[in-house]
Amino acid sequence: MLRLAPPGWLRFSQASQFNVIYGGGESNVAVSLANYGIPTEFVTRLPENDIGECALMEMRKRGVGTQHIVRGGERLGIYFLETGAVARGSKVVYDRAHSAMSSIEKGMIDWEKVFADAEWFHWTGITPAISQGAADACLEAIQVANRMGVTVSTDLNYRKKLWKYGKSPAEVMPDLVAGCDVILGNEEDAEKHFDIHPEGVDVTQGHSVEAESYLSVCQQLMKRFPRAKKVIVTLRGSISASHNSWSGVLYNGDELLKTRTYQITHIVDRVGGGDSFMGGLICGLLKYQDDQKALDFAVAASCLKHTIYGDANLSTVAEVEKLMQGDASGRVSR
Amino acid sequence: MLRLAPPGWLRFSQASQFNVIYGGGESNVAVSLANYGIPTEFVTRLPENDIGECALMEMRKRGVGTQHIVRGGERLGIYFLETGAVARGSKVVYDRAHSAMSSIEKGMIDWEKVFADAEWFHWTGITPAISQGAADACLEAIQVANRMGVTVSTDLNYRKKLWKYGKSPAEVMPDLVAGCDVILGNEEDAEKHFDIHPEGVDVTQGHSVEAESYLSVCQQLMKRFPRAKKVIVTLRGSISASHNSWSGVLYNGDELLKTRTYQITHIVDRVGGGDSFMGGLICGLLKYQDDQKALDFAVAASCLKHTIYGDANLSTVAEVEKLMQGDASGRVSR
Amino acid sequence: MLRLAPPGWLRFSQASQFNVIYGGGESNVAVSLANYGIPTEFVTRLPENDIGECALMEMRKRGVGTQHIVRGGERLGIYFLETGAVARGSKVVYDRAHSAMSSIEKGMIDWEKVFADAEWFHWTGITPAISQGAADACLEAIQVANRMGVTVSTDLNYRKKLWKYGKSPAEVMPDLVAGCDVILGNEEDAEKHFDIHPEGVDVTQGHSVEAESYLSVCQQLMKRFPRAKKVIVTLRGSISASHNSWSGVLYNGDELLKTRTYQITHIVDRVGGGDSFMGGLICGLLKYQDDQKALDFAVAASCLKHTIYGDANLSTVAEVEKLMQGDASGRVSR
Amino acid sequence: MLRLAPPGWLRFSQASQFNVIYGGGESNVAVSLANYGIPTEFVTRLPENDIGECALMEMRKRGVGTQHIVRGGERLGIYFLETGAVARGSKVVYDRAHSAMSSIEKGMIDWEKVFADAEWFHWTGITPAISQGAADACLEAIQVANRMGVTVSTDLNYRKKLWKYGKSPAEVMPDLVAGCDVILGNEEDAEKHFDIHPEGVDVTQGHSVEAESYLSVCQQLMKRFPRAKKVIVTLRGSISASHNSWSGVLYNGDELLKTRTYQITHIVDRVGGGDSFMGGLICGLLKYQDDQKALDFAVAASCLKHTIYGDANLSTVAEVEKLMQGDASGRVSR
Amino acid sequence: MLRLAPPGWLRFSQASQFNVIYGGGESNVAVSLANYGIPTEFVTRLPENDIGECALMEMRKRGVGTQHIVRGGERLGIYFLETGAVARGSKVVYDRAHSAMSSIEKGMIDWEKVFADAEWFHWTGITPAISQGAADACLEAIQVANRMGVTVSTDLNYRKKLWKYGKSPAEVMPDLVAGCDVILGNEEDAEKHFDIHPEGVDVTQGHSVEAESYLSVCQQLMKRFPRAKKVIVTLRGSISASHNSWSGVLYNGDELLKTRTYQITHIVDRVGGGDSFMGGLICGLLKYQDDQKALDFAVAASCLKHTIYGDANLSTVAEVEKLMQGDASGRVSR
Amino acid sequence: MLRLAPPGWLRFSQASQFNVIYGGGESNVAVSLANYGIPTEFVTRLPENDIGECALMEMRKRGVGTQHIVRGGERLGIYFLETGAVARGSKVVYDRAHSAMSSIEKGMIDWEKVFADAEWFHWTGITPAISQGAADACLEAIQVANRMGVTVSTDLNYRKKLWKYGKSPAEVMPDLVAGCDVILGNEEDAEKHFDIHPEGVDVTQGHSVEAESYLSVCQQLMKRFPRAKKVIVTLRGSISASHNSWSGVLYNGDELLKTRTYQITHIVDRVGGGDSFMGGLICGLLKYQDDQKALDFAVAASCLKHTIYGDANLSTVAEVEKLMQGDASGRVSR
Repeated sequence: MLRLAPPGWLRFSQASQFNVIYGGGESNVAVSLANYGIPTEFVTRLPENDIGECALMEMRKRGVGTQHIVRGGERLGIYFLETGAVARGSKVVYDRAHSAMSSIEKGMIDWEKVFADAEWFHWTGITPAISQGAADACLEAIQVANRMGVTVSTDLNYRKKLWKYGKSPAEVMPDLVAGCDVILGNEEDAEKHFDIHPEGVDVTQGHSVEAESYLSVCQQLMKRFPRAKKVIVTLRGSISASHNSWSGVLYNGDELLKTRTYQITHIVDRVGGGDSFMGGLICGLLKYQDDQKALDFAVAASCLKHTIYGDANLSTVAEVEKLMQGDASGRVSR
Repeated sequence: MLRLAPPGWLRFSQASQFNVIYGGGESNVAVSLANYGIPTEFVTRLPENDIGECALMEMRKRGVGTQHIVRGGERLGIYFLETGAVARGSKVVYDRAHSAMSSIEKGMIDWEKVFADAEWFHWTGITPAISQGAADACLEAIQVANRMGVTVSTDLNYRKKLWKYGKSPAEVMPDLVAGCDVILGNEEDAEKHFDIHPEGVDVTQGHSVEAESYLSVCQQLMKRFPRAKKVIVTLRGSISASHNSWSGVLYNGDELLKTRTYQITHIVDRVGGGDSFMGGLICGLLKYQDDQKALDFAVAASCLKHTIYGDANLSTVAEVEKLMQGDASGRVSR
Repeated sequence: MLRLAPPGWLRFSQASQFNVIYGGGESNVAVSLANYGIPTEFVTRLPENDIGECALMEMRKRGVGTQHIVRGGERLGIYFLETGAVARGSKVVYDRAHSAMSSIEKGMIDWEKVFADAEWFHWTGITPAISQGAADACLEAIQVANRMGVTVSTDLNYRKKLWKYGKSPAEVMPDLVAGCDVILGNEEDAEKHFDIHPEGVDVTQGHSVEAESYLSVCQQLMKRFPRAKKVIVTLRGSISASHNSWSGVLYNGDELLKTRTYQITHIVDRVGGGDSFMGGLICGLLKYQDDQKALDFAVAASCLKHTIYGDANLSTVAEVEKLMQGDASGRVSR
Repeated sequence: MLRLAPPGWLRFSQASQFNVIYGGGESNVAVSLANYGIPTEFVTRLPENDIGECALMEMRKRGVGTQHIVRGGERLGIYFLETGAVARGSKVVYDRAHSAMSSIEKGMIDWEKVFADAEWFHWTGITPAISQGAADACLEAIQVANRMGVTVSTDLNYRKKLWKYGKSPAEVMPDLVAGCDVILGNEEDAEKHFDIHPEGVDVTQGHSVEAESYLSVCQQLMKRFPRAKKVIVTLRGSISASHNSWSGVLYNGDELLKTRTYQITHIVDRVGGGDSFMGGLICGLLKYQDDQKALDFAVAASCLKHTIYGDANLSTVAEVEKLMQGDASGRVSR
Repeated sequence: MLRLAPPGWLRFSQASQFNVIYGGGESNVAVSLANYGIPTEFVTRLPENDIGECALMEMRKRGVGTQHIVRGGERLGIYFLETGAVARGSKVVYDRAHSAMSSIEKGMIDWEKVFADAEWFHWTGITPAISQGAADACLEAIQVANRMGVTVSTDLNYRKKLWKYGKSPAEVMPDLVAGCDVILGNEEDAEKHFDIHPEGVDVTQGHSVEAESYLSVCQQLMKRFPRAKKVIVTLRGSISASHNSWSGVLYNGDELLKTRTYQITHIVDRVGGGDSFMGGLICGLLKYQDDQKALDFAVAASCLKHTIYGDANLSTVAEVEKLMQGDASGRVSR
Repeated sequence: MLRLAPPGWLRFSQASQFNVIYGGGESNVAVSLANYGIPTEFVTRLPENDIGECALMEMRKRGVGTQHIVRGGERLGIYFLETGAVARGSKVVYDRAHSAMSSIEKGMIDWEKVFADAEWFHWTGITPAISQGAADACLEAIQVANRMGVTVSTDLNYRKKLWKYGKSPAEVMPDLVAGCDVILGNEEDAEKHFDIHPEGVDVTQGHSVEAESYLSVCQQLMKRFPRAKKVIVTLRGSISASHNSWSGVLYNGDELLKTRTYQITHIVDRVGGGDSFMGGLICGLLKYQDDQKALDFAVAASCLKHTIYGDANLSTVAEVEKLMQGDASGRVSR
């Protein structure tokens, strides 16, 4: 996807230039993992034009594998982003309809070949939201992955403005999530997709929310989707567009693990925060084989993302581990 | 007026480019109102050169009427702005002497025609400060407005560095303010123009000041200018160049209305804060016919202005009302 | 030295342009002093190419004398700077080996001529760290200065990544510091150069540290280097890359003077903070003949530096004194 | 339409920013005319989002009327432009499918109201190429215009990559062109739309072509579309992407009028060259009532366009007339 | 003077940033000379504000002496520059009235001190054009220079838009030029100031003009101003805004010396062309003591200026001599 | 290598930003080939820091293989580039001493592994010029390539400012070139490396030179290096820094093949012209198996390079073939 954003805090009508970022949900996760030294392949469909080519080059630059990307379709999806500050939230104008990805169809990608040497498959709730074909391809992939023993994770990622092709999330998502081993979401995702609610938490107040209250959400999700071994909830406290608190909890069936809450007091770019959490979580689970450390890594990683411009997290394992081990002093590294 | 500012937080001597903004006190109010969907006409005098033309185009772009603008004079007034941070305040170098507006004279504008369909006339204390001709034209306009039943408002807007043509504010302002129905000012304006003081407040300490202490200021102003039905005081607490608190009070003869105080913790641009307050206030008074709501709207509107680059507030009614209703979380609007 | 930095908060791999700043430890001090109206000469060695010429021009622009600069050597030292935010610290990649300055040798500069009308000579611990020749030239300068009655000051400025020519700081620094009248350092400098420690302070916690605990450091330094009449320690509390607290203490043999601690809540550029402290201190000592005022001036000056882009402090005496006298409100100066 | 272009001569894959221009065929003509002081209304359909709003603001800024613009539809059409040089031609990637304009339908615009005070209606061959609905609306407009006695002009503007909705130009264009009083085209337009060819000219050779050879094209067009009183052909000689020759001929049924050929040796932006010709032609015909002068004006106007960045011609009558009268010396105007 | 220019070839109304250049007629000559290693002092009056300080810093950066600059007055003069291309000439909007320099008065500068060690004094026709005070100060300087044996040169530099204080050039210039040893002008200067014309040359045709035809102009000037030992005429052929031919002739009373005509086919910035000629001429006369070489140097120097952005010529003696000796191949210097 | 260049035509001393390009001789050839769809591996040594990482990412982005790159050494070589215009040539300041590549040593790269699947090995005369180690590694590579039957090509690429490690080209180059099958050079390379001269050609005159005169150069080279099957000479006519003519000849032992001469009238960036020729030549030889077509392709490819910013040629086979087939009209590709 192509992101076009006025520089700094300019509003759309003030911009004579747009900053250009090639990214998007799944590709952001892939970039995170590549930065951590984990071999990845980004599987998508890109149009056969120069703009599609640019998106591909960005993946290559970041070390993400591109050999399974198929080419075709009309256009690269676009979104316009206006960066907010303090009481003015960032604003997104979507222009992603009719994208190459939205016109994908079952059978266009040879998933058995894709998963030949794969250990993990990650998808997000944005894909089934954009078209029937994308939902079909997604289900196809999950089924093949399940059959081949590839771990499947999802970021539920509810987006109200998508889901326009005639189906509701409630009709589509359950079959997909049923094939997942790891489920990531925030409070809104669980509610909008499956009518599952945290208890006793008012998420509109801009205050940090209590981790405990999410236990019931995790338990409900795991009950409904019994394949899932881990349910993770990101906890964002929106003090303002410039200052968020950030944490997460991981429920593994036994216990609800918590971790430090970060005060991100000078946000550079909060888009892609969830994707960077997912990238950190997958890396953490693969690397440490320890749920607590994986959660610590995921939250620290996505804390760093908020200080990095663009959709993708460009931090390294060393940087994340430094923060995860407690050094948030931001001292100059010389 | 043309504003020239080094990008970011650069000092003048570091800049090889200046950002270009066309604005100024009254035009900022007009832009605010146009953004709220209220028909406006900006009445001024602009030089007949390309720079004057650019100022005109910016007004048109923002939907402000330009049909009563007269052309002539030597130059467009300029000010240079260096944006401060934390303990370093922003710095303004004025270069507005000899502007087209400063050489305006009584009779150059046909105020009866201007006010033919008008409901409201707003002027600021900057206009009578720049030249005798501008003061005369201003008085002429107020008198015609009063005669034609057009509501008149003023933002007192004291600027020490202006007032160089031989008259003091004390000689000029009373006659002008006497024709006003709505008076806006801050603590300094009342003091410098009319020697009226808030009580028990030390405005140099950078702390949020108590709204109550301004009651006496409002009462004194209303007593001195009996036509005024509402006196409004903006309350700025300057914690630092990057963090201000912001609120206001409105006295309508009966009671002193207060509203929420906003913590603007990451200021993008505080120039035009007062103008955006005035724009919000006029809109609020016209829209709600409710002093409390008008005040709430004005303060929320100008809180948003501090997050927007340039002199003018580019926020919409929907954005202001969202904030006014309590959502200051700055969440991404997708 | 040439500093190359991605704009804003971009990471190196995101930048298609680097901002260009010519600076460096001693030159930053010289620029500070020139801004305060104190005649200075910057003594260094620059390569005979266009990049060296640019560095020279920047000095001239800022009013720093350049008549004792010698030309020659291979290259201008470079460092790459990535500006951090919140939990992501700024990152420096040094590329200063083989610089013109590092190949300086004893005898290349006629120090007697340099010091003919001089009152003060300042050097930093970076110079003896880069090469034997630079250490020799530094010692030569200190000895001539001592002989000619020129006050000598040093900023210990420990940099682990330098000191690669085969000598350790412990072997080189004592002889140099022995000739100093004024010694500036932070907690790390004293430890790494001379194995001197503050007591009971954990500097990695990101909290403001207690000034008192540095008394023993100062006393130990002064005992070891009896020529020193004043030892000054800068106190930086790294809350995050975006927010530091900042203060300092001065020990003059009699008492440990303290001053206000500034909360620098929105750092623009913290590189050169120590240099700006030194510039302020020298100015303060020369100007006020009062240790407390000199310390107040130094801390206020370097507080302002953190709001200014680039390595050098571009603030004036008037600006520093305004802050030093308590006005940190950051109000617009019109 | 939104145009996104890498700065300077960068290729798409080199750009981290895109320059933003709001324009498009008909709007470019409208801007030209507004610059010449001729009242215009731009009639189109724009999406109800911030990007659509930006396009509207640009029209307002340039003095183009926007009162008949209808809002709705999915998106603003986009095209990506890479600016070429010498032997590398500029490259356009279209992303205009599914635009708000393409989903316009007959009846959405009240053409009788639009033409109430109108003297002239201009449309281009791009509109009927994008969708059946747009073609229908275009035909509807032409028929109303004809009925109301409004002069109709067209720029044939053949674009191979459009025309994807199932109809060919040969099926659609004749009915539309039949209602036109003034027809503008280049050699390719006549051929691709109506299979009409110039004689004895090889347009691929990059040489200036002989004006005379276009007489037969004009005569054939006028014979086929007898309502047409004037047929105009633009003559572009593509020496390279940086150097074009530029002229035009006008056939009014009596004679083929020629004018000067300009050597545009340092092209700044050739996009919109044809639109600026049309804008100049309409202005010239309305202003001079003299075919020769109108043609001279049109060619001079569009010569100037090639020196102006963006799609629209931002030159004034005074500037065009200066060139038209022979002063192509490009001397500084002080 | 402050020059503000849209980047690239943008028109004023397209610019959201202006490039910032500090320059002006006499300062451009001073910068040229400083670049050639000739000690210079720029004598002017600058306002006591940050913008005036920036102008001063630019002089210092370029190595121009600033010790005789006096401070005071209202403002720094400004001009806005829009860079043209091909048939669109560059456009200048002056905003230099009321500048600090224009309010200079006789006696403000101690010319005897200024000329104490001076060899050469240069002034331009712009100075006496801006105010009576400036004309008086100029005459005062010339008289002191004459008395002290300092060579005086002038660049006649006619600017129609100046000369607004009530005197005509014909009233003011003769007394000033009478004190000059070296006179530089172009065809227009001689005509507008003294009604002296070249013969048989039509300067509006954009063609290179014949050097010979200027002999009579030189002879007339020298006859009228007998102190003049050399009269120099610059010969600009304006093929277009992007392509000029450039040469000059020097008449020394004996013969009319000619030199090579340069084809400047891709002009980067032609503003300051005349000033760079003068800088080259003074350098050449001082350096070679040979009129032909001085003329060759001057023309080559100003040819290079046209390839350099900004008002001032930033070329070195080595670069000018390389071109003067015939190498115009523009090969890469590695 | 890192290239740092002021934007546009600014001189070094005018730049507050440098454009960042990662490139260099061999990598430019690799990028060319990758753009043509030919699998490549770039073999070099990069420092283990972020700047080295950026260089690597650029290779990956462009599709160049990086698996044989070794990491280590002090720094990435830098060069500063000032872009010239017309009579002012571009200027290069080298800062490449002590680069990671210069400290490479024989044995650091496992050439047998590198050449396992390789068909072609290309090196340039810059590598043996920078250090004994680089020359040794180069010879090692050539010997392994010869042994394994890999075609070897060289671009002689003489650079006077390199060759500082104590050996002359005459001592080093013959052994290296002796192993080459294809030799590319220009007139200067043959002369400076091997004292071989074209006959009857004055290359300093800035005129296109006669292809025939290079026959003797090719024959001499082939006689001296009998392994060579093809000798190619690039023919650059430097009319000015903005306008070059460009062609080449290929001698295959039988005949001297010539091709079209291109007039590159508006050069965007001429750095990397030779590398793009080599990239085109290798591609052409592999693709067409026809010397004439290969030469045509090489010259057309490098003609396009001159219109592309940066060191590397970013054109495609389709673009090169379009030009090679005669379409140099630079028409817009829509």
